[in-house]
Amino acid sequence: MKKITGNSINTTNQMPEVEAEELAQYIGSIILIHGSIIKIRRMQGFAFVLLRTKRDVLQCVYSEDFSAFKLDRLTEESCVRFTAKVVEEARSKTGTELHLLQVEILSQPFESSPIVINQKVVDTSLEHLLHFRPITLRNERQRAIFKLQEGITSGIRTFLSNERFTEIHSPKIVLSGAEGGANVFQLDYFGKTAYLAQSPQIYKQMMVGVFERVYEIGPVFRAEKHDTSRHLNEYTSIDFEMGYIHSFYEIMEMETKMLRFLMEYLNQNYLKEITLLSVRIPSVDEIPAVTFREAKELAATGLGKEFKDSKDLEPAEEKEICDFIYKTTGSEFVFVTHYPSVKRPFYAMDSQDNHEETESFDLLFRGIEITTGGQRIHQYEEQVKKMRSRNMDPEFFESYLMIHKYGMPPHGGLGIGLERLTSKLLEQDNVRLSTLFPRDRSRLEP
Amino acid sequence: MKKITGNSINTTNQMPEVEAEELAQYIGSIILIHGSIIKIRRMQGFAFVLLRTKRDVLQCVYSEDFSAFKLDRLTEESCVRFTAKVVEEARSKTGTELHLLQVEILSQPFESSPIVINQKVVDTSLEHLLHFRPITLRNERQRAIFKLQEGITSGIRTFLSNERFTEIHSPKIVLSGAEGGANVFQLDYFGKTAYLAQSPQIYKQMMVGVFERVYEIGPVFRAEKHDTSRHLNEYTSIDFEMGYIHSFYEIMEMETKMLRFLMEYLNQNYLKEITLLSVRIPSVDEIPAVTFREAKELAATGLGKEFKDSKDLEPAEEKEICDFIYKTTGSEFVFVTHYPSVKRPFYAMDSQDNHEETESFDLLFRGIEITTGGQRIHQYEEQVKKMRSRNMDPEFFESYLMIHKYGMPPHGGLGIGLERLTSKLLEQDNVRLSTLFPRDRSRLEP
Repeated sequence: MKKITGNSINTTNQMPEVEAEELAQYIGSIILIHGSIIKIRRMQGFAFVLLRTKRDVLQCVYSEDFSAFKLDRLTEESCVRFTAKVVEEARSKTGTELHLLQVEILSQPFESSPIVINQKVVDTSLEHLLHFRPITLRNERQRAIFKLQEGITSGIRTFLSNERFTEIHSPKIVLSGAEGGANVFQLDYFGKTAYLAQSPQIYKQMMVGVFERVYEIGPVFRAEKHDTSRHLNEYTSIDFEMGYIHSFYEIMEMETKMLRFLMEYLNQNYLKEITLLSVRIPSVDEIPAVTFREAKELAATGLGKEFKDSKDLEPAEEKEICDFIYKTTGSEFVFVTHYPSVKRPFYAMDSQDNHEETESFDLLFRGIEITTGGQRIHQYEEQVKKMRSRNMDPEFFESYLMIHKYGMPPHGGLGIGLERLTSKLLEQDNVRLSTLFPRDRSRLEP
Repeated sequence: MKKITGNSINTTNQMPEVEAEELAQYIGSIILIHGSIIKIRRMQGFAFVLLRTKRDVLQCVYSEDFSAFKLDRLTEESCVRFTAKVVEEARSKTGTELHLLQVEILSQPFESSPIVINQKVVDTSLEHLLHFRPITLRNERQRAIFKLQEGITSGIRTFLSNERFTEIHSPKIVLSGAEGGANVFQLDYFGKTAYLAQSPQIYKQMMVGVFERVYEIGPVFRAEKHDTSRHLNEYTSIDFEMGYIHSFYEIMEMETKMLRFLMEYLNQNYLKEITLLSVRIPSVDEIPAVTFREAKELAATGLGKEFKDSKDLEPAEEKEICDFIYKTTGSEFVFVTHYPSVKRPFYAMDSQDNHEETESFDLLFRGIEITTGGQRIHQYEEQVKKMRSRNMDPEFFESYLMIHKYGMPPHGGLGIGLERLTSKLLEQDNVRLSTLFPRDRSRLEP
């Protein structure tokens, strides 16, 4: 019988197998290091070999003076384990350079890639970039986008956990879409019709009755037919919901505090990627808040158009509002509050003094909405009445209405699209660029 | 224009609104605290009022001597904000007791709950427990299960992040199921047939080529028709995948190290729930590993049955193996290695010396499989050959095979069912008890 101790990962008896981040501690030593070969740059009498490791690109030097193997054994995208001497080199990003002594070839590609990934930028169409995603993501800048995206989720989790939110996992196969409308995917569930969750809305509300503050970071599904640079049919939603709020402004306060924390967290833990991608991290000081009505007027003035009493903000209006706020206050974020009731879901709380408005908000960032949030109805009779006014049958929502019936605190929350947030942070013009494997009308793979 | 500063959450101008965990710092002070009323226990001349807060149950005392409101204003499941004096009380779990001075009623239930949730145990059938889930989860012990479950994910994330794994978010709507078989949910995707991902398998393998080590904690979907105490149709899968392994034993080493870290993490951060639920945290020292063949023989002997050369372990056999290993080694975990090739998916690597076996393993814990893992094929020709031998068309897997074609390190990984792990940790007899909102053949809500 074998015994697994948990103590023998990446170890051999010979010498330490080290991580890129540890190299500075090994200057002058001979070490083992593994990775895949990005590029071989042949020079006069020696060669530079770039090695892809978990998070870094390491500069290695091959020379017949010290390398005890033939250079032609190395090919791009081969996976190797080098025996190397760590040498100080101020001009390298890691402060070190590796003198290659020996190589163990672990695997070799069957063919060379049809797409060039070892230049600074993957110079191709969006279509090709996404088609060859498993390979194009190996590009240093491409993968940095998703390392930074990891930082966003981990920063937000750290913040929410500090603020005593409990993480939940709600079902994605549901009996009905929470957000209403036609944009919901349908599936056969053992002979019944089921849907893919458009949001964890009803579940996070249920859980407010249990833990007071909850959050979930997970996939949501929208069967939106339009194919734009800002929509995805599946995306990662960052949702939180909190009880015992005094008003919906408290949710905006929490989001402001969270974004401020997040930007600081990214600066502290993801500076490598921020530098590589030249990310302009926004400052989150005070975030201005304008009402929907003010926002519409402001946009009309800015765009030189007549004020139209429509119930939603057009993309051009969102952009105009952001520009105006940035120019007048210096903030790249702006809250828009009190959206019209007709445009918000059945669970949105109407304002007491104006029933055509809701206690709700969007957050715009660099020209686009990245958050929708607001206070929810917590009283049973108010919720049933609003459902009836929308021709929804309360009987069908029996499970959901249990929380209203048997007691709920005043509460509210928000949802943030992870990919959209990443994409605006990086000032990209298409959300797909910040989506690992995008799903849109025409794209189901990879 | 309003300004949102992020500094005004749960504050009033009068006095601090405090958290349960902070009470000990406020002994002798008058504070604000909010929560929902679990129970009112009327005594001679005073009453105990139990208050549900985010993670605690607080003992409050009502007395006409100091309470400036009528007791009958308080009802169960009302949400309230109390003004209270913090008093030392050694017999209380928090070391304090709250003397209620004033109350602000924030909301009241429309009806009282049809199910009793304020006793130690929710005394009802599994059917009712799940039907009334939004309410029954408010029970102190019920919710502790899911607080502990949060600890499992957060402990595992902490460990994997320390070990330089990158977190990813892979799509759940996919072109084909990765695990094969008929148990896959199908949906209409803009006129095409798509499926719900049975696992993030192909995506995590793709991402090994990018980040070397990756993980994902997210939903997976299995259209299994059988309705047992151990299966769910949607569950949360903890998946990791790592490159540059020397053999599949390294994955088992990583899991052993992870479980050891996790149990320590739970003891340090979730002792409240561990104590409340009397959880027996297993020790993770060395984990024994037996081969599938040995395991079959051992089970046959133990069960007093003739050895049958079947290709899978029956539930009774898994139980028998766990019992035997526990008796002979003291370990509640046991690895079973080298599962038959016919029972493993197309991406599993066959053993070099015996092509009918795979470089794979399951981990059994307290009588049941909680992990499946192994090394994957990384060479293009080997993968294509195995697909063909299973009548799979490599053309259809063009995206997936890009990684094999253009270079992949030796790699492998595993998947752990979060709900099943939680459920065995708690020694429950049904995985639904550790599932927030279970999906099974007959259950689509809540």
